[in-house]
Amino acid sequence: MAKTTVNAQISPVAGMDVLSRNEVSRLRDATQGGLHALLRRCALAVLTQGIVSDDARGMLERYPDFEIQVLQQDRGIKLELIHAPAQAFVEGRIIRGINELLFAVVRDIVYIATQVEAGRFNFDDSLSITHAVFEILRNARVLKPNIEPNLIVCWGGHSIPRHEYEYTKAVGYQLGLRALDICTGCGPGAMKGPMKGATIAHAKQRRKSNRYIGITEPGIIAAESPNPIVNNLVIMPDIEKRLEAFVRTGHGIIVFPGGVGTAEEILYLLGILLHPDNVHIPFPLVFAGPKESVAYFEQIDQFLRLALGDDVANRYRIIVDDPAETARAMAQGMEKVRLFRLNNKDAFFFNWALKIEHEFQTPFRPNHANVAALNLNRNQPRHLLAADLRRAFSAIVAGNVKEEGIRAIEQHGPFEIDGEAEIMRALDAMLASFVSQHRMKLPSSKAYQPCYRVKSA
Amino acid sequence: MAKTTVNAQISPVAGMDVLSRNEVSRLRDATQGGLHALLRRCALAVLTQGIVSDDARGMLERYPDFEIQVLQQDRGIKLELIHAPAQAFVEGRIIRGINELLFAVVRDIVYIATQVEAGRFNFDDSLSITHAVFEILRNARVLKPNIEPNLIVCWGGHSIPRHEYEYTKAVGYQLGLRALDICTGCGPGAMKGPMKGATIAHAKQRRKSNRYIGITEPGIIAAESPNPIVNNLVIMPDIEKRLEAFVRTGHGIIVFPGGVGTAEEILYLLGILLHPDNVHIPFPLVFAGPKESVAYFEQIDQFLRLALGDDVANRYRIIVDDPAETARAMAQGMEKVRLFRLNNKDAFFFNWALKIEHEFQTPFRPNHANVAALNLNRNQPRHLLAADLRRAFSAIVAGNVKEEGIRAIEQHGPFEIDGEAEIMRALDAMLASFVSQHRMKLPSSKAYQPCYRVKSA
Amino acid sequence: MAKTTVNAQISPVAGMDVLSRNEVSRLRDATQGGLHALLRRCALAVLTQGIVSDDARGMLERYPDFEIQVLQQDRGIKLELIHAPAQAFVEGRIIRGINELLFAVVRDIVYIATQVEAGRFNFDDSLSITHAVFEILRNARVLKPNIEPNLIVCWGGHSIPRHEYEYTKAVGYQLGLRALDICTGCGPGAMKGPMKGATIAHAKQRRKSNRYIGITEPGIIAAESPNPIVNNLVIMPDIEKRLEAFVRTGHGIIVFPGGVGTAEEILYLLGILLHPDNVHIPFPLVFAGPKESVAYFEQIDQFLRLALGDDVANRYRIIVDDPAETARAMAQGMEKVRLFRLNNKDAFFFNWALKIEHEFQTPFRPNHANVAALNLNRNQPRHLLAADLRRAFSAIVAGNVKEEGIRAIEQHGPFEIDGEAEIMRALDAMLASFVSQHRMKLPSSKAYQPCYRVKSA
Amino acid sequence: MAKTTVNAQISPVAGMDVLSRNEVSRLRDATQGGLHALLRRCALAVLTQGIVSDDARGMLERYPDFEIQVLQQDRGIKLELIHAPAQAFVEGRIIRGINELLFAVVRDIVYIATQVEAGRFNFDDSLSITHAVFEILRNARVLKPNIEPNLIVCWGGHSIPRHEYEYTKAVGYQLGLRALDICTGCGPGAMKGPMKGATIAHAKQRRKSNRYIGITEPGIIAAESPNPIVNNLVIMPDIEKRLEAFVRTGHGIIVFPGGVGTAEEILYLLGILLHPDNVHIPFPLVFAGPKESVAYFEQIDQFLRLALGDDVANRYRIIVDDPAETARAMAQGMEKVRLFRLNNKDAFFFNWALKIEHEFQTPFRPNHANVAALNLNRNQPRHLLAADLRRAFSAIVAGNVKEEGIRAIEQHGPFEIDGEAEIMRALDAMLASFVSQHRMKLPSSKAYQPCYRVKSA
Repeated sequence: MAKTTVNAQISPVAGMDVLSRNEVSRLRDATQGGLHALLRRCALAVLTQGIVSDDARGMLERYPDFEIQVLQQDRGIKLELIHAPAQAFVEGRIIRGINELLFAVVRDIVYIATQVEAGRFNFDDSLSITHAVFEILRNARVLKPNIEPNLIVCWGGHSIPRHEYEYTKAVGYQLGLRALDICTGCGPGAMKGPMKGATIAHAKQRRKSNRYIGITEPGIIAAESPNPIVNNLVIMPDIEKRLEAFVRTGHGIIVFPGGVGTAEEILYLLGILLHPDNVHIPFPLVFAGPKESVAYFEQIDQFLRLALGDDVANRYRIIVDDPAETARAMAQGMEKVRLFRLNNKDAFFFNWALKIEHEFQTPFRPNHANVAALNLNRNQPRHLLAADLRRAFSAIVAGNVKEEGIRAIEQHGPFEIDGEAEIMRALDAMLASFVSQHRMKLPSSKAYQPCYRVKSA
Repeated sequence: MAKTTVNAQISPVAGMDVLSRNEVSRLRDATQGGLHALLRRCALAVLTQGIVSDDARGMLERYPDFEIQVLQQDRGIKLELIHAPAQAFVEGRIIRGINELLFAVVRDIVYIATQVEAGRFNFDDSLSITHAVFEILRNARVLKPNIEPNLIVCWGGHSIPRHEYEYTKAVGYQLGLRALDICTGCGPGAMKGPMKGATIAHAKQRRKSNRYIGITEPGIIAAESPNPIVNNLVIMPDIEKRLEAFVRTGHGIIVFPGGVGTAEEILYLLGILLHPDNVHIPFPLVFAGPKESVAYFEQIDQFLRLALGDDVANRYRIIVDDPAETARAMAQGMEKVRLFRLNNKDAFFFNWALKIEHEFQTPFRPNHANVAALNLNRNQPRHLLAADLRRAFSAIVAGNVKEEGIRAIEQHGPFEIDGEAEIMRALDAMLASFVSQHRMKLPSSKAYQPCYRVKSA
Repeated sequence: MAKTTVNAQISPVAGMDVLSRNEVSRLRDATQGGLHALLRRCALAVLTQGIVSDDARGMLERYPDFEIQVLQQDRGIKLELIHAPAQAFVEGRIIRGINELLFAVVRDIVYIATQVEAGRFNFDDSLSITHAVFEILRNARVLKPNIEPNLIVCWGGHSIPRHEYEYTKAVGYQLGLRALDICTGCGPGAMKGPMKGATIAHAKQRRKSNRYIGITEPGIIAAESPNPIVNNLVIMPDIEKRLEAFVRTGHGIIVFPGGVGTAEEILYLLGILLHPDNVHIPFPLVFAGPKESVAYFEQIDQFLRLALGDDVANRYRIIVDDPAETARAMAQGMEKVRLFRLNNKDAFFFNWALKIEHEFQTPFRPNHANVAALNLNRNQPRHLLAADLRRAFSAIVAGNVKEEGIRAIEQHGPFEIDGEAEIMRALDAMLASFVSQHRMKLPSSKAYQPCYRVKSA
Repeated sequence: MAKTTVNAQISPVAGMDVLSRNEVSRLRDATQGGLHALLRRCALAVLTQGIVSDDARGMLERYPDFEIQVLQQDRGIKLELIHAPAQAFVEGRIIRGINELLFAVVRDIVYIATQVEAGRFNFDDSLSITHAVFEILRNARVLKPNIEPNLIVCWGGHSIPRHEYEYTKAVGYQLGLRALDICTGCGPGAMKGPMKGATIAHAKQRRKSNRYIGITEPGIIAAESPNPIVNNLVIMPDIEKRLEAFVRTGHGIIVFPGGVGTAEEILYLLGILLHPDNVHIPFPLVFAGPKESVAYFEQIDQFLRLALGDDVANRYRIIVDDPAETARAMAQGMEKVRLFRLNNKDAFFFNWALKIEHEFQTPFRPNHANVAALNLNRNQPRHLLAADLRRAFSAIVAGNVKEEGIRAIEQHGPFEIDGEAEIMRALDAMLASFVSQHRMKLPSSKAYQPCYRVKSA
């Protein structure tokens, strides 16, 4: 099908620093060389926001002629867009929010590439990774001094039913009424609803300096393209840095219903919060949904208690069908975070105190050998079990929707997930219920064909 | 049922001018004397926004203890609220937008009362009425210099089905993308949807100085209470002044589906636009709705052509199922308005050139004698026929939902509407279709019992 | 000598409200009829700021072709200037501050004329005069809510020697460092220095919303034309209203050395502060000057003590050669004013509590009969003596520089000032010292020929 | 003599980015280790602004107990000041502009040290030096996109007579009226006057976003301490980088009368402008002064023509006693610069096109051997002769006021300056006239004892 496209040259409306001659030429080289494919893919994701699809490749196929070039100009840089999706434009002029996001993409891709190239980012040790995360966020102007803790991260599925989406809007509305800002993975569904709700509430409260932060990474941006309410976009290098960015900048987290990706996020977060060094650190965490979704969280809750012990539940509250109470819990949590940071002379804008072990920071490659090597037994510290469970979910996400994972499944069949029998049974039941609740979305509309097999279950 | 209420003292956050000692004491007197009932009623409407009800009396009955007092303070005035509806507050603090609307209510009620009392408003001749409308709008800071024509008035029903409401949001979104501002009657339904849609679009366009103007009057504010996205509220003295305010400040009008009230507005506007003096004045007018609502506008269109002649249709476009085209039509119309005003050295902020005859400006009292006296024949200039048709619809609105009208019907039976047979038949058919489309909403859920009888039909 | 002049049409850059058609046409009429001469004179004063001259007539003679017209335009009004002094323009474009002042002149002249014409200002009783003063100031946006007491009025001569001028700058600098705003009579000399000093200090303190208020009246504006640092100009109807505006809006007053006009101001203020109703009201008052000017204040101090009693000195401090201490005294006084207003629930922006008797509010016509009728004896309440002494000084000012006074002197010889012998001797000595200190400036450079004769001295 | 001092902890009011834990601890180390002396010296210069003295050491001796520490805090960093000069405070609170300058000092010292340490600044080749200059300026937020050429650099003496100082204010005033921004070396005299004048003019033009940029370096900051009108301070690593910063960021230069340091600046600039690669680049340059100073520029002009050829005068205009014309020349020059940059797609914020050879970029150490090695003959390209003449003046400045130079003179006697006889004679005459005009200021008030001897003269 022929798509309407637009050719345009756009200038940054804000936020793009002046560049040196070196940087501009590096940027042009980049966009002609290795980084160009990455830039093109991310830019297309920004330009096609609003089109929901799990298939990143499909987008590139729909706009095969799309091209992007960086031009040097007298007052800074410009972007030349060729055959760009028309939906990003209104009467031939690009939507201003999309303009901002495009330049954010350029900014982060070049920044990360040049820092890595210059040897300034060292991903070998835990502290260096945290500093790299810090510097990428700072460069993206995400870290602001003089703001009291008020940033609520919202996690949840990018393709959820209407009533769950409306619920995320209702919660966002209540958060917005309480002058809280929103941070999400910046895609559709549970990542968009809270921002829309908060936008309306912020308007009613006449709040002008609102922050709608989107944190993404190149592997997911196509599937979860940022909607332009996001006014602060940052592209982290990979999943693990993205997750670290969420927990170090957010002051509290709300988890809405989602699929296996949401389960991965929950395991990641609890794996960190269960670390002995972190037990005293306040971290408001609520699982939230409409009453129709109560089964989802019950299943997660059961599984978490079984695998990680009953007291894991002290780390979260489940609040069903009560957006105001959900927001109230967060607002009260903000005060605890504030006092804790003040007492510990810690920054408000970055949670330095949180201990994140190296295994939570380094990429997990989802192949059969790595999945087989996971230790899914309770014969180990539970934060390590949480880490390996997180990896198991990560593999399923990859097998479902990521190019590398899909190819691996096509060649070698489903991932074999093995471990302690009781855990396996619970895991299998939970995954089956995700399937039956249609939480395993795929590009095609065919019945879900699992990419995993739980052994010992 | 016991409602949660809150007691609070609130200070104006913005927009309230400094008052003289005289004015403050007049205000306090007012709130103790004649104006107090009016102030209490309007304030309660603002505080209960979001509760949809056609029954204004119901609201006062639900909050019988609600009280409001004006207090003089060192830096200005304060409002004391007793037993105020809790929904206007978040954790005990009033929503800032509601705060602004409350002080706007105080401002307008006192301003109009004191100007009338001082003999400065003269409602006897047409020009003086227009100047009073101008001064009330100016005092409310609605009239802004140095803004190009961009204010779109949206009319339509306050209680419309979900899909029509969503459509008004979609249109508002497209208007917002084009940097257009919104003006409505400031209630729910078609008056709220465009503002919500525009709010999201304005956020995406990073537009900060948005105007969401609500124009209401004491008789309707309870049924159409302003939602706090409205950031510029003005209370006109009566229906006719309110309608004049719409057509003199708005640069174009979109009519969404509604009921008999919407028909009244259409007749009012066309009655003016058909006046010989106004034929050369551009005034963008679109009837807009989703494809399911096409029947509604077809019926209106037929009736208008029959009663006022086919060429009345030159004054409006019907655009179905195309929010972007609707907004585009308005954006293009803005350019025509701009050029016309420039050529005629007319103000952008007030449409002085529009001729509005005295019969469109003075209140129509909806009683049996007045209804019987209407001339609904084509044996007269058609803008005068439009004026009397407008009055007929006005009477039906009153008979349906206004206190005075309901009482008249209870005492004397339905209004008898008579006139030229062909017109009467068309009128009867249209009203019947409104009933069957559930566009004759009433406080109770009982089947609609018409308050009118069309003779000669 | 031929002056360079400029023709230009200018639009208001800010602060000019939208006008109704009525108002614009009234304004045009005005500029063609009675008000035109007044408008032309005041506009010329604004346009020639910076040219120091005591001779208002001289200015009109230097620009005999100068003309000003009000034009109605699509978006508001414009001013057409013909043969306007070139110094108000930079490369053909009017200085923005002068633009603002010109439109302030138009605003006030029209406002006062229309209010008086409409019978809304009643100058017969004390309270009504105060309300008129309030309304003129409010219309000029001088009264701002939500600002803590911080407005320092600076009085003093408009033609003072260099070292005294530098001292007023130094005091203004110290006031500015303490975040205090400045209000003066808006001419040169002691009225300009404090604003220049404060401007530099406000820049160093990075203070953006500074207020430099100038309060003038038609009779004096030509001699004391407002310099464009003034960003809030208001033209009061006459001297007495101007003086009342100073004491009701200012939160404290600094008096720098001046001539007989400054003495008039001092007598006016002390006459009010000595009123029994005002004794408990805090009103910071400092007489300030460099050490070379110490004689000036000693003489004033002696005269005041003699005429009004030693305890009059409780109402002021004399601070010599210490700008920082002068500013500190004001800053501390602000706190007292703040607490007093809070305790009395009085406005910060207008000193309602101050009792000003009718004799301080009504114009004094400086002719021989009125001067002869003054009661300059201590056989009366001292605030009444202060009032008559104020009038005596007022007459000398008029005899020196005002048209009406000069003519009276030419016809009938010097004013005869008579009263209690001891007072007369002190008065004569003080006036003689003003002459010897060259504080009796005149248009011509001839030796000063006194316009008064003190009898019984 | 005992000085009043203050102890205080201050937080940055603006402009200080968030810092990482690494950076804060490096900063603390720095302030305890090698950088601490530098930080302390520069901070003291900022705190003592307004005290004119050529003797940097004197300042440290007056405040021997002054101490500064960097503290890490929950929301960023703080500075602890011990025994700080009281003049930087108003009633115990630091002047906000001084606060900003202090944090700018911290920012630049740490930035340069860490970049050099990390090997990111390479001072070996010309292009790398230019990039380092760019990055320091960018880090200091001096480079702004989207501003048309409007930055006027003002050079001239820091200790000039009153009438020359008043003239620099008058020129700054005319520049400010024309919406031009000011950049100077940020000390007193000709570096302060233009900023003060512009501040008043900007206030009259109601211009809010003014830039008063000060560019200094550690060796001179004590003698030319930044006055807090400077709202954008940057500390370059040495004289040559500072000079490069002036010519790459400024869009035009005005040279006021000064001493031998000003002559050094003139030679530096002409040396660059005479380079064959730069002949086509517009660079507005005016030598400006009151009529009393005409001799100064005549002498400079003669010397320049003799040494560099008559056509050197094409590169500058001498405008005497006409501040408005001086500003007009700059305003017209801005338009030429704008068009040139547009045509060459060069940035407005940084003059990349200007060729600056390596000998103008590297520090010249002022010792006897280096001075003796200078080639002051016309047997070479004239831009190279200009470079060596610049070094000769630089040596005299050092011999007059810099520690290293003074010591060298004490040990080895005056610098011997030799070269082509005609040049030497002219040089000697010019230097003698500087002495007789009291333009060779020294800490002590003793008669000037030359630190140089011109041979062959």
